[in-house]
Amino acid sequence: MDHAVIMAGGSGTRFWPKSRARLPKQLLSLVTGQPLLVDTVVRLDGLFARERVRVITNSAYADASRALLDGVPARNVVAEPCGRDTAACIALAATLIDRDDPDAVVCVLPADHVVSPAADFRAAIARAIDVVRTRPDALLTFGVKPTRAATGYGYIERGDTLGSSRGVPFFRVASFREKPDAATAQRFVDSGQFSWNAGVFVFRARTMMHAIERHLPDLAAAVPAIADEWASTGSITQARYAELRKISIDYGVFEKERDVVVMEATFGWDDVGSFAALSRVLPHDSRGNAVVGSATVLDAKDNVVLSEPGHHVALLGVEGLVVVHTDDATLVCRRDDAERVKEIVAQLERGGHRELL
Amino acid sequence: MDHAVIMAGGSGTRFWPKSRARLPKQLLSLVTGQPLLVDTVVRLDGLFARERVRVITNSAYADASRALLDGVPARNVVAEPCGRDTAACIALAATLIDRDDPDAVVCVLPADHVVSPAADFRAAIARAIDVVRTRPDALLTFGVKPTRAATGYGYIERGDTLGSSRGVPFFRVASFREKPDAATAQRFVDSGQFSWNAGVFVFRARTMMHAIERHLPDLAAAVPAIADEWASTGSITQARYAELRKISIDYGVFEKERDVVVMEATFGWDDVGSFAALSRVLPHDSRGNAVVGSATVLDAKDNVVLSEPGHHVALLGVEGLVVVHTDDATLVCRRDDAERVKEIVAQLERGGHRELL
Repeated sequence: MDHAVIMAGGSGTRFWPKSRARLPKQLLSLVTGQPLLVDTVVRLDGLFARERVRVITNSAYADASRALLDGVPARNVVAEPCGRDTAACIALAATLIDRDDPDAVVCVLPADHVVSPAADFRAAIARAIDVVRTRPDALLTFGVKPTRAATGYGYIERGDTLGSSRGVPFFRVASFREKPDAATAQRFVDSGQFSWNAGVFVFRARTMMHAIERHLPDLAAAVPAIADEWASTGSITQARYAELRKISIDYGVFEKERDVVVMEATFGWDDVGSFAALSRVLPHDSRGNAVVGSATVLDAKDNVVLSEPGHHVALLGVEGLVVVHTDDATLVCRRDDAERVKEIVAQLERGGHRELL
Repeated sequence: MDHAVIMAGGSGTRFWPKSRARLPKQLLSLVTGQPLLVDTVVRLDGLFARERVRVITNSAYADASRALLDGVPARNVVAEPCGRDTAACIALAATLIDRDDPDAVVCVLPADHVVSPAADFRAAIARAIDVVRTRPDALLTFGVKPTRAATGYGYIERGDTLGSSRGVPFFRVASFREKPDAATAQRFVDSGQFSWNAGVFVFRARTMMHAIERHLPDLAAAVPAIADEWASTGSITQARYAELRKISIDYGVFEKERDVVVMEATFGWDDVGSFAALSRVLPHDSRGNAVVGSATVLDAKDNVVLSEPGHHVALLGVEGLVVVHTDDATLVCRRDDAERVKEIVAQLERGGHRELL
């Protein structure tokens, strides 16, 4: 059977003041009016029954996540006591799924990206599942055609064409390149041979477990006992989980395996890495202002405004700003500085403003 | 005796969202933590007994003004049913005072300027009172030494030296010049012969009434009946007041009289015409950020931030902005556009946002 694993571990300090210690990015309603995590689960409907959807999240967010997800069994929301990056998360998920279903194919996807249309996404995943059913040793990742020389993403270099599934070709991965500098990123984009790594993977659970045994044997050795503990008690001892090696699945496994396949993402994708990214995924006026909530905009352009219900934001003469209002805090920053919002959070922490974190 | 008349008629749409239809600039706490009107009355203490302080304001603000002003008799807060500019206001005040005290000297001053130190202001007024006691036909105005080529103020050209009072000289006014263009303003400042008109006047009530009879006879004829109505009923019929000629005391009287005297303002003065002006009168950090309330400022300079208690404003990377937070609305504008905030108010009015006005 096919299973989905939603990685929902992020804390999202780049979305302060919307995101807080107990309200990470994936629980925020930034785009559609419902939390990104809910969008992600809804997007899978029709392809994965909700009993076969798992969410791996921090224990601090587990109850809130469960409350949002009708039809996803409570035990499917797995609570990590601390974050140990994606290799540990995927090793645990694959182990739990493999125990239920030794022939399982797993689709791993982030909880907090914006993807549309949902039907195109489901069609792409269905094609990828076909590929790993016929190439059982393959690990498949999706590559997004780059639209700019972004330096914040991982890039995937396309190698030989291996075949096609329902008309969409897939390729051997020639190399993975993490976050290049601007010149390198531009060269990647110009070459036409590189894609962004969307963080959406498809593989047989058993294949992934074997790959982890080969490349991260300490992780492979430690995870079964953690899966046992989770299965029997519904929680994981922090000290035990904290000992797992902290490494991404990209570095730890994908870059080392030989049968790694990339398939073009035939769906719209944005990782919405900061408030600035909202200008790409939200509707905006003719002068490039994207507004959520009630606002008056006068002689202003290329701004992103988020306001809570019952509050009005007025912009006059400003350009390229992010303005985010919440009940107890307001952020005003340049759109180009939106990635630095976490520095505000750090300063609030140093300043003892615990009530705002 | 000496009397003070505080002109408090302004509506202050340039201070939205702090100012509202029922909360004009003079009732806002922008600088000292107490309303500008209160600052203005307190500044007079020791020079004018509060029974001899009158406030001329719009009827919409009269009760709120009375509630703020301990010691000022309720009947001294005169409620105009509509605004008819400063000539009507001063004509009415002079008439009311003259009936109580035919030998009265009157100091007229705006309710919403920032003046300090208070002792210097009182000393300057005391000197001016001496001048008009010895020159009973003179109308005296204070001139502020210009610190920039402002285009929004009236300028006073100094003529012959007429004398001095307690060591401070006073001069005949050679001319009044309303709001010059930038080049003319620069020429005025460079010449050293021009001062800003601070809107603070000292004169004998009887002298002003005669001047109004000469230059604005229709106003002089209409005001006694209005004074009668106020004295007997404590209110003024709107239709009657609306018929008064609407003209400033500068245009209507000062520019036409011959014995007009200007004395240098030996006190700090700022009309605080917009939020931008707060950067001149509020304390600021080494990078020019003036903050009232709770805020975090990171890599930002030359901003003005006002936040209500219980709310935190974070600025990152921005420059030259005004950010004003209130419970139901937030303004973000360029400091250079602060004079245009009234355009936001007009747009809210057109958009039917009555709850925000």
